[in-house]
Amino acid sequence: MTDLQDYPPQVQDEIARTREEVCELHAELTRWNLVVWTAGNVSQRLHSADLMVIKPSGVRYDRLTPDDMVVCDLDGVLVDGDHSPSSDTAAHAYVYRHMPEIYGVVHTHSTYATAWAARGEEIPCVLTMMGDEFGGPVPVGPFAIIGDDSIGRGIVETLRDSRSPAVLMQNHGPFTIGKTAEAAVKAAAMVEEVAHTVYVARQLGDPLPIAQDLIDRLHDRYTTVYGQH
Amino acid sequence: MTDLQDYPPQVQDEIARTREEVCELHAELTRWNLVVWTAGNVSQRLHSADLMVIKPSGVRYDRLTPDDMVVCDLDGVLVDGDHSPSSDTAAHAYVYRHMPEIYGVVHTHSTYATAWAARGEEIPCVLTMMGDEFGGPVPVGPFAIIGDDSIGRGIVETLRDSRSPAVLMQNHGPFTIGKTAEAAVKAAAMVEEVAHTVYVARQLGDPLPIAQDLIDRLHDRYTTVYGQH
Amino acid sequence: MTDLQDYPPQVQDEIARTREEVCELHAELTRWNLVVWTAGNVSQRLHSADLMVIKPSGVRYDRLTPDDMVVCDLDGVLVDGDHSPSSDTAAHAYVYRHMPEIYGVVHTHSTYATAWAARGEEIPCVLTMMGDEFGGPVPVGPFAIIGDDSIGRGIVETLRDSRSPAVLMQNHGPFTIGKTAEAAVKAAAMVEEVAHTVYVARQLGDPLPIAQDLIDRLHDRYTTVYGQH
Amino acid sequence: MTDLQDYPPQVQDEIARTREEVCELHAELTRWNLVVWTAGNVSQRLHSADLMVIKPSGVRYDRLTPDDMVVCDLDGVLVDGDHSPSSDTAAHAYVYRHMPEIYGVVHTHSTYATAWAARGEEIPCVLTMMGDEFGGPVPVGPFAIIGDDSIGRGIVETLRDSRSPAVLMQNHGPFTIGKTAEAAVKAAAMVEEVAHTVYVARQLGDPLPIAQDLIDRLHDRYTTVYGQH
Repeated sequence: MTDLQDYPPQVQDEIARTREEVCELHAELTRWNLVVWTAGNVSQRLHSADLMVIKPSGVRYDRLTPDDMVVCDLDGVLVDGDHSPSSDTAAHAYVYRHMPEIYGVVHTHSTYATAWAARGEEIPCVLTMMGDEFGGPVPVGPFAIIGDDSIGRGIVETLRDSRSPAVLMQNHGPFTIGKTAEAAVKAAAMVEEVAHTVYVARQLGDPLPIAQDLIDRLHDRYTTVYGQH
Repeated sequence: MTDLQDYPPQVQDEIARTREEVCELHAELTRWNLVVWTAGNVSQRLHSADLMVIKPSGVRYDRLTPDDMVVCDLDGVLVDGDHSPSSDTAAHAYVYRHMPEIYGVVHTHSTYATAWAARGEEIPCVLTMMGDEFGGPVPVGPFAIIGDDSIGRGIVETLRDSRSPAVLMQNHGPFTIGKTAEAAVKAAAMVEEVAHTVYVARQLGDPLPIAQDLIDRLHDRYTTVYGQH
Repeated sequence: MTDLQDYPPQVQDEIARTREEVCELHAELTRWNLVVWTAGNVSQRLHSADLMVIKPSGVRYDRLTPDDMVVCDLDGVLVDGDHSPSSDTAAHAYVYRHMPEIYGVVHTHSTYATAWAARGEEIPCVLTMMGDEFGGPVPVGPFAIIGDDSIGRGIVETLRDSRSPAVLMQNHGPFTIGKTAEAAVKAAAMVEEVAHTVYVARQLGDPLPIAQDLIDRLHDRYTTVYGQH
Repeated sequence: MTDLQDYPPQVQDEIARTREEVCELHAELTRWNLVVWTAGNVSQRLHSADLMVIKPSGVRYDRLTPDDMVVCDLDGVLVDGDHSPSSDTAAHAYVYRHMPEIYGVVHTHSTYATAWAARGEEIPCVLTMMGDEFGGPVPVGPFAIIGDDSIGRGIVETLRDSRSPAVLMQNHGPFTIGKTAEAAVKAAAMVEEVAHTVYVARQLGDPLPIAQDLIDRLHDRYTTVYGQH
């Protein structure tokens, strides 16, 4: 394990700040009911070095402190921390290696998004809010199990050609990405909300579609005017 | 941008009070689970000047302070504030310009109300609570997208001839109105509750209708005796 | 309005204690998600005089204090308090006049119980917890609207011959009764829970019935051994 | 009733520690919405003596203190405590007598798990999270009513040959087991989460199955690498 003291001061400073931010964002996962027990994780890539900060494995959310957050390199190898990194670290690391514009990744098993994933069915874009945030349906990624790069590869291959910051990995659950960990957490909250809303709409009958050119206008405006993507 | 100091003291006082009230009412949106992340907003029109106080754009609910609240004129132009006004400001402003008795507007994407909106289906009046509060079904407004006055116009045209303080804008979500922002927030909480309840009833089978004359009696009594509308 | 000072000290003491208890129990309504905004109420009858303590009308739950609680006689006439009594006071009073063993009444519009009420359909007894608490299905009461004794009469006529402490008033919502207000609040929490659970079971298919003699054994044991009814 | 002073100091110490832990774990039942009012309980067996610590009967969760926790022997007989033990004590005790590797038992009536129990239908293993935690479907146990050993026997007979730490007792609700009370509480939270998610998936259509050999690989890895079972 590398000694953190070997890194330049600005890297050490960014690590300290990022540990605070990533810890605080895990509280958002519980606030918006996206996780149960320890079943979700947030990471953020550093700008000053090829490192990421991620949740430790198996620590309960109400006990997480910034110091518990783990530092790994972009192969998922532990660099600093008192705990093992999350068991999903390999998937986060794969995303950072293959999507250089991405600095935040979130994984949850939030109820409604995971239900669509269990069906292997994309969430159709029937809400203006989905046009804004996702620019179309929320896509489904392949079935892949933990242990090699297949989860990371499934995420990257699905999202690379999509405007959606969220993918529903089949039988597994949502992964979301963003330019910051906060943006990825927002996407995790939004994908659960639209998964729930469209589920309810579908139980009532067939939701009304939104024409593709209107979805395009919503998404263009949202990402241009607000620059929130 | 006008200087707030140019306004008479009683306007400045009403602005300060209204910033407190509107900020506090955003906490009610989260308390009753009506919003996720930053996706809902409350405004209140002033009595002492043609101004409104509204939520800033993109600030998380747990960080909102009264000082963050933005003052706009009734064309939605920023008059005072450190942030941009909510992206829904134009719709709020349109309502105030065209419904002079209205001093509060609320917009959310609350789950169940938005699901009915995605279906383009009004919520039938099958609960005595709906007779009280809404005086009939909760109506659906037209599909309209952000960028001009079409959302505001859709709200006003739908609610002008209705007893309901809530409209479900198609594929979008609920807007509610009231004589105060608090009344509009109450209507936002109530429309979500009845949307949820009637959804569940419909999954069980066909809800029992309430005869129109009984709905009229409920609504008359509620608005006369309690004067809560 | 009678002056509270005219009552003997032990009545004044019981009123003070009961205001504390009834106020505290309203917090249980929000804790268990049984109410939205101001749409539910708890009352408790006194043992030392023919009086009841009930929620005031239209005050938000987070602002209720013991002093806000209203004292009425058993005709629902205000005896002491700074607010109007709940608009459901007549129904509570009717129950106390006609069921002398009852000292607590609760009314909510909790989501799932109210959905069954909108269907006019009793909740079948398919859970051992229902056998314990309700001793059979949760019955439906008649359609009745506010303004005379028809709600109170519907509650009493339905519950008088039932083992259930809860009735689903058609198109309206649940009323629950108990030997104390706390027991009635517990019944309000339990009826919502079983309404939700049996709804979900029915969406999955037909719930398995429990034979009547087993329901009887569950209920006898629960009310005898635990004396919690 | 045995005097607690008769036990060796290390037993008295373990009792004190276990009362703290078991009390704190009841707060997790409410945090994850697994219980209403008093309808769920946690116990933990001691390592230093044939004793267990369990929730008292009928005390509300927000009032539970470590001192309220009750000590019983493994026949469910009260050894120390100011309250009666939970009415489910006999079932917990039966599990400890017949599954010597188990040191934690939890019982709830959590909504979605209980709905599957009311259907008498196992929850199919269609989520990778279920492969990890349960190693297959969540099984259904027999209908059994309180009063003799039939609940305990049903739990043990169902779980003895299963990889699942959770059983859905028919028409009743889930019981979960673990090497500690915390592990059993985690299983109670997870079984409710998967019961909810798979319910939603099934309302959308047929969930996609996961092949048995993949379930085996998930479960083997989870229990070997993480040793969390």
